[in-house]
Amino acid sequence: MSSNPTIAYHNGSWVPWSDVRIDPNDRGFLTADAVFDAARTFNGEGFQLKAHVDRLYRSLHITRMDPGISADEMLTITMEAIERNEEHRAAVGDFQVWQGVTRGAGRWAYDAGVPNVYVKVSPVDFGRYGPHYEKGARAVVTRTQSLSYGTVDPKLKTYSRMHFNLAELEAGYTDPGAWPVLVDSIGNLTEGSGYNLFIVSGGRVITPPSTGVLPGISRQYAIDIAKRLGLMVDEVDIQPFDLYSADEAFFTGTSPCILPVTVADGLPIGSGLPGPITQQMLGTWSEDVGVDIATQAVAFTPGM
Amino acid sequence: MSSNPTIAYHNGSWVPWSDVRIDPNDRGFLTADAVFDAARTFNGEGFQLKAHVDRLYRSLHITRMDPGISADEMLTITMEAIERNEEHRAAVGDFQVWQGVTRGAGRWAYDAGVPNVYVKVSPVDFGRYGPHYEKGARAVVTRTQSLSYGTVDPKLKTYSRMHFNLAELEAGYTDPGAWPVLVDSIGNLTEGSGYNLFIVSGGRVITPPSTGVLPGISRQYAIDIAKRLGLMVDEVDIQPFDLYSADEAFFTGTSPCILPVTVADGLPIGSGLPGPITQQMLGTWSEDVGVDIATQAVAFTPGM
Amino acid sequence: MSSNPTIAYHNGSWVPWSDVRIDPNDRGFLTADAVFDAARTFNGEGFQLKAHVDRLYRSLHITRMDPGISADEMLTITMEAIERNEEHRAAVGDFQVWQGVTRGAGRWAYDAGVPNVYVKVSPVDFGRYGPHYEKGARAVVTRTQSLSYGTVDPKLKTYSRMHFNLAELEAGYTDPGAWPVLVDSIGNLTEGSGYNLFIVSGGRVITPPSTGVLPGISRQYAIDIAKRLGLMVDEVDIQPFDLYSADEAFFTGTSPCILPVTVADGLPIGSGLPGPITQQMLGTWSEDVGVDIATQAVAFTPGM
Amino acid sequence: MSSNPTIAYHNGSWVPWSDVRIDPNDRGFLTADAVFDAARTFNGEGFQLKAHVDRLYRSLHITRMDPGISADEMLTITMEAIERNEEHRAAVGDFQVWQGVTRGAGRWAYDAGVPNVYVKVSPVDFGRYGPHYEKGARAVVTRTQSLSYGTVDPKLKTYSRMHFNLAELEAGYTDPGAWPVLVDSIGNLTEGSGYNLFIVSGGRVITPPSTGVLPGISRQYAIDIAKRLGLMVDEVDIQPFDLYSADEAFFTGTSPCILPVTVADGLPIGSGLPGPITQQMLGTWSEDVGVDIATQAVAFTPGM
Amino acid sequence: MSSNPTIAYHNGSWVPWSDVRIDPNDRGFLTADAVFDAARTFNGEGFQLKAHVDRLYRSLHITRMDPGISADEMLTITMEAIERNEEHRAAVGDFQVWQGVTRGAGRWAYDAGVPNVYVKVSPVDFGRYGPHYEKGARAVVTRTQSLSYGTVDPKLKTYSRMHFNLAELEAGYTDPGAWPVLVDSIGNLTEGSGYNLFIVSGGRVITPPSTGVLPGISRQYAIDIAKRLGLMVDEVDIQPFDLYSADEAFFTGTSPCILPVTVADGLPIGSGLPGPITQQMLGTWSEDVGVDIATQAVAFTPGM
Amino acid sequence: MSSNPTIAYHNGSWVPWSDVRIDPNDRGFLTADAVFDAARTFNGEGFQLKAHVDRLYRSLHITRMDPGISADEMLTITMEAIERNEEHRAAVGDFQVWQGVTRGAGRWAYDAGVPNVYVKVSPVDFGRYGPHYEKGARAVVTRTQSLSYGTVDPKLKTYSRMHFNLAELEAGYTDPGAWPVLVDSIGNLTEGSGYNLFIVSGGRVITPPSTGVLPGISRQYAIDIAKRLGLMVDEVDIQPFDLYSADEAFFTGTSPCILPVTVADGLPIGSGLPGPITQQMLGTWSEDVGVDIATQAVAFTPGM
Repeated sequence: MSSNPTIAYHNGSWVPWSDVRIDPNDRGFLTADAVFDAARTFNGEGFQLKAHVDRLYRSLHITRMDPGISADEMLTITMEAIERNEEHRAAVGDFQVWQGVTRGAGRWAYDAGVPNVYVKVSPVDFGRYGPHYEKGARAVVTRTQSLSYGTVDPKLKTYSRMHFNLAELEAGYTDPGAWPVLVDSIGNLTEGSGYNLFIVSGGRVITPPSTGVLPGISRQYAIDIAKRLGLMVDEVDIQPFDLYSADEAFFTGTSPCILPVTVADGLPIGSGLPGPITQQMLGTWSEDVGVDIATQAVAFTPGM
Repeated sequence: MSSNPTIAYHNGSWVPWSDVRIDPNDRGFLTADAVFDAARTFNGEGFQLKAHVDRLYRSLHITRMDPGISADEMLTITMEAIERNEEHRAAVGDFQVWQGVTRGAGRWAYDAGVPNVYVKVSPVDFGRYGPHYEKGARAVVTRTQSLSYGTVDPKLKTYSRMHFNLAELEAGYTDPGAWPVLVDSIGNLTEGSGYNLFIVSGGRVITPPSTGVLPGISRQYAIDIAKRLGLMVDEVDIQPFDLYSADEAFFTGTSPCILPVTVADGLPIGSGLPGPITQQMLGTWSEDVGVDIATQAVAFTPGM
Repeated sequence: MSSNPTIAYHNGSWVPWSDVRIDPNDRGFLTADAVFDAARTFNGEGFQLKAHVDRLYRSLHITRMDPGISADEMLTITMEAIERNEEHRAAVGDFQVWQGVTRGAGRWAYDAGVPNVYVKVSPVDFGRYGPHYEKGARAVVTRTQSLSYGTVDPKLKTYSRMHFNLAELEAGYTDPGAWPVLVDSIGNLTEGSGYNLFIVSGGRVITPPSTGVLPGISRQYAIDIAKRLGLMVDEVDIQPFDLYSADEAFFTGTSPCILPVTVADGLPIGSGLPGPITQQMLGTWSEDVGVDIATQAVAFTPGM
Repeated sequence: MSSNPTIAYHNGSWVPWSDVRIDPNDRGFLTADAVFDAARTFNGEGFQLKAHVDRLYRSLHITRMDPGISADEMLTITMEAIERNEEHRAAVGDFQVWQGVTRGAGRWAYDAGVPNVYVKVSPVDFGRYGPHYEKGARAVVTRTQSLSYGTVDPKLKTYSRMHFNLAELEAGYTDPGAWPVLVDSIGNLTEGSGYNLFIVSGGRVITPPSTGVLPGISRQYAIDIAKRLGLMVDEVDIQPFDLYSADEAFFTGTSPCILPVTVADGLPIGSGLPGPITQQMLGTWSEDVGVDIATQAVAFTPGM
Repeated sequence: MSSNPTIAYHNGSWVPWSDVRIDPNDRGFLTADAVFDAARTFNGEGFQLKAHVDRLYRSLHITRMDPGISADEMLTITMEAIERNEEHRAAVGDFQVWQGVTRGAGRWAYDAGVPNVYVKVSPVDFGRYGPHYEKGARAVVTRTQSLSYGTVDPKLKTYSRMHFNLAELEAGYTDPGAWPVLVDSIGNLTEGSGYNLFIVSGGRVITPPSTGVLPGISRQYAIDIAKRLGLMVDEVDIQPFDLYSADEAFFTGTSPCILPVTVADGLPIGSGLPGPITQQMLGTWSEDVGVDIATQAVAFTPGM
Repeated sequence: MSSNPTIAYHNGSWVPWSDVRIDPNDRGFLTADAVFDAARTFNGEGFQLKAHVDRLYRSLHITRMDPGISADEMLTITMEAIERNEEHRAAVGDFQVWQGVTRGAGRWAYDAGVPNVYVKVSPVDFGRYGPHYEKGARAVVTRTQSLSYGTVDPKLKTYSRMHFNLAELEAGYTDPGAWPVLVDSIGNLTEGSGYNLFIVSGGRVITPPSTGVLPGISRQYAIDIAKRLGLMVDEVDIQPFDLYSADEAFFTGTSPCILPVTVADGLPIGSGLPGPITQQMLGTWSEDVGVDIATQAVAFTPGM
């Protein structure tokens, strides 16, 4: 990054991100009463920004928070945040751009103060993904379960993520370096702690339905790529049995786009290497955005 | 409060609370990867502090966070925090004292930075409870459910509380000013968003078992008072039917101690007024701590 | 019965029961929007009438129906109904006395007309029980499940009993003449279609907890008898395994009081004959009420 | 209505409806051991009568009741009931036509008397729907759950509807005048107390699958209209999240056909007004039956 | 059979089946730690052998057993087993060919000995199916439930089948001679104790989804036949309601292929006789394999 | 062992165990249609033999198998099996004595052949337990769940144990050498693959209720010891949270009696060493049977 700080939007002003202070009395901190969304850039261009903003506004609607600005304004602010920090991009490759809204302080959620809004950019966390494009990530199916509809609908994107934290701790204990995948209370596979799961089986591309997982924008983009490539796509419930028996598997996420998964609970998936359909889909995505996604991630991974 | 700021412990130092900054990259904010506990004082004396610290350390153990200080040290720091702020107490009546630990920044919960630890005091939020001692609070049983064991054990005290936020929003929509009570996935009553529920029925004092709720220290103190008063106490599953049919009901919580509940989902409970056993238990508690709990709360409630 | 009709209370009047007409537009018929209770007499004396009336008023409270008369008045009316029909008793042995309240007509339950109230007496249905005191009834554990708390709390006594009807049909298909016992969604035994289940195992008297079954007044009376006899009583979840393995089993109900059960799903229970504790408890009950319960039932069973 | 009474079919005879008496000992009353179906007329012509009769006979088959007449005979009787009451139609607009079968009296469902059969007509209850075509009805998602398969399959159309009554009471308490929508035990949206739910999202028409709801004949007709209009239709599980986030929503039912829903739990749906696809579908239905459905309903709504 | 014994493969050797000894210390016996598959021949030709072997190897992969031979070798051995026993075939019609792998002895599944592998042939058990082609089998929907994903995924084909045994005992008690069909914990129909269930309704061929049942190879073949015949096929959750209301029903299994079902829980399905679509599908299958399946089964049924 | 083979009871005869052949067509092998029990000796004396035989006969009753000999005869045979093999005892320390009953061959469980009965002795498997008395065993709470009541009641002791096998494989993958503990579908801790779990917390001895686990005879003996020592014993649902937070933990089983557990999912339990109450209970048990249980186990553990 340049020696200048990155600039962030905060409650109507543009300020150095390093000056943004989270009030420790904010419900967004004390009770995770906050929603957010996060997109990334390719070559400095925001990707699917409108879809991210629309999802953010669904989260706001359902949590009954009024950010005081419209979705259109949020989109404009988001694009401006990218532009204002362009000087920093070369050093980091590309940006993650993040919109957060907290409810503010107050004794009850229904009777709290004015929401706080911020939009910031930061480097894409390439170091997390870069090492796994070649050999694939290892997955651990956790005993820790996803949220149920009755508690907090998993489609709501909030900071209240202790279930994800516990799943990560469980994966870290079981197979250090592995990526957790949570089940629901019935035993269906759902999602990871910030990424969606796909398997490829008999030439079909299969992913859990969007009802019980965060309806990932990258998840949808991957579905669309698969259809463009003439593949059958099923959004159906799958179980660990199906992951273990799959020909291929991969995660989708805003930053890694498509990340191969080659081991689940210690069992090799298919050949044990990233599969051809996974590779083809990642190639198509790279073409779409004009960036070789894996190559960029490796290039910006420290120590690779 | 005096014109001096309150003093808080933060990662080994004593600093003005107003200077404590939550790093917006801390997992404690972004993923609610944080645990806490909160006690109160009576006449400036910490109440059940050791029990609160022990519970905090259970939360830390299970979330695999090392705060870098022992439980004994935490107890000493907590008492020191109360003492250091004694000058402020007269103006506010009594203190809430709060211990928080966040995991720090990092890509995975199992591979994050050094936890951040803070201990602070603030005025007891009397304004929330004061108005309800005389006529009783109104309860709303929410469709929003408590966390299940498989997701995040409700016995773990964390900042990941969107289910509580949604329950509050639901109560606020259904009966403005009412206090939410959540059910579990089977339909048993569990707890509110930071308080436990008791009913009195046929002379028995009944509360949901501690397996599926935060095992409140005030809950336990109330159980002990009831036993001292010669009452039968049952820790058993109850359903909304039992709340509606009860003779009396009350909440327990660190600050209000015992707060009468006289309406549930619009139905009067028993006589519709705080019941005699509720009153007797609150009286005993007041004697124990040398503070007339309800009178103090009313005195410090703005506008009463 | 005498040639006079039995007299019933209906919305403030005493009329021949044969004149009581249920309006086919009443929600009590069209949507089973009705609650009730039923007691019996011994030697013409009402048994546990106050407990029955109290339970009726809990049902009314929770279904938000106002019968227009107080519980005390209902008790008086109930006793009067028994007295007014005394002339009929000799021919039938004893009476069942029944209180019913329907919501009346209307488009929504919350916006309906004036409830209809009736109290009637009829002969105890001895023919149903009489044949089983000597050899025991046969039970069938049905696939049909009890209501869950989330749907309609089983503690509410209403006319909405299709689950009981289906359980009876299932028992009738599986083992004609058998008595159904329903499980809950977890597989615990609950109750029959109007009677509670007990088992005796290792000298302990065990019955499912009152949370998920109608809290039978006869059930409670049987518990009290067992305690008077010095027996241990457990109100705990039991499964079909426990019924099959029990030493003894019996049903309790308002009319039969205690009815031995000697076969479950075709498997003999214990010795396959009514057990000694069952017999002892029935004997105590008979002494309490001054009626040999089994002998009376047999005497009034047609064809025995 | 004319001064003559409406004529109803009752156990083989045609009698004034006002003479039809429900025996208070009938299981159809005491245990809701009864099934039914209900259709309506447009301009005095029965609509989808055969589908209604077929559904009634599925209910009879599964509850093992023999009405003593064939489905063809029932269809003929139904049409005759409409014709016999034609004189009354002008005053009320159109008829609801209702077939009911109760099991009769008896000690066990599998050993009861002869079923009672009745067919009657009554005015369409326009007053319930008329006020909502312009601005849309308000929905409340209730904590009260639908019946589960294991208890009574929701596809069975019976009088045993206390869960619907409780849902109505809950809606009436939460938002007076609102229409309840029940969830299942998992948290999926199911149906209202006599109507099905649809949402429109991204141009798709979506309704919960027919497995866990009454498979409404109007529901099916709406699906068929949507397909004729070239819309994609999904019969999939949806959750409250989806209702809150929908572009449009509507109920379907025998009498209102399609009724716009514009608020759910206090949150506006889409624009907060009846949506264009909802309107278009209602328009098509009106054309199909030669009646402007909304206009008729408003015309016959008292006070509009 | 000829007077020679049948020859079986056992851990690398070909031996008389009568000499194959199961070590009573093998986990495959003591803990049912064994997987298997079973195919059949038509006119002595193995049918779908590769699909069976592939399924076996999925079972082995997931139970982490290494049989020491590849799937290709297993296929070759399987074909050889058929050939080696050809002399016996005339007397029995056709063969069932069975592959079993047990884990061997050991204190923990993860630390046990060398797996034991055997492949054997035996006569198709025609006597079980033959009597039912003409009038159809009777089904009993059992209270005994299928395995849940969380326990043992039903897609895994193992010897651990006590749930099937209990379902058979339940069917045998309820309706001697009937075939059990298990539900899942939600109340969906799943499968029988070694066969899959189909219904035909409104011209559609419907079967429970393959997620919660053994993904039968005959099930898949039947689906493919239905599609070839131009029928719509749905793989969706169905409930007992749907079976009772169906037009036709049948089982599929390796040996009977398609077996009509005409009664469920005592209720006739459709006409009460094998239905036309069922017959047509069986006819197509017979043509495919060059064997009149029903005729052959009847011919080899003792006493028919 | 001596050079003579051990002698076993098999279907009425006493034969060398090495001659006992399990018919590979026996349902006890092919469908795990078999029940069993297993006791051990101390100094060659059978321990709690009657309790084991009684439990075996409950299993037989419920699986509707008739072994052809009475429980008294089985007890006599069991004692004889111990006596007949006394010559072998010195070399192995003590015996495990095992009773097994398989259903025999047949097409349906309800229509199978004659059960096979065997009773055998073998050395106690000290090598499995010996290494863990000093430092404690490590536990892994598995995602694999116990059987539910609806499938196969966990109180039934059968060979159908694939859930146990999968739990062992999961433990072996997660923490090689660790002992699995299964949860139920709600997330309660249940039991291991052949042993029960206890925790000690605040001086109370706590174990999951016997409803959802095998009601271990050693479990009951441990409860009785705890009561004799004046400790409070709770049989209540506990969750992983409670195990992680416990002061002590141990397993009970027929052979190890009481085995300390000091780590759960990588987290130390209490001090991380076998706790004082655990030790005291094991000491009492040793006194009761006249064998220092841990010392004997260590002595007969190979390599210790």
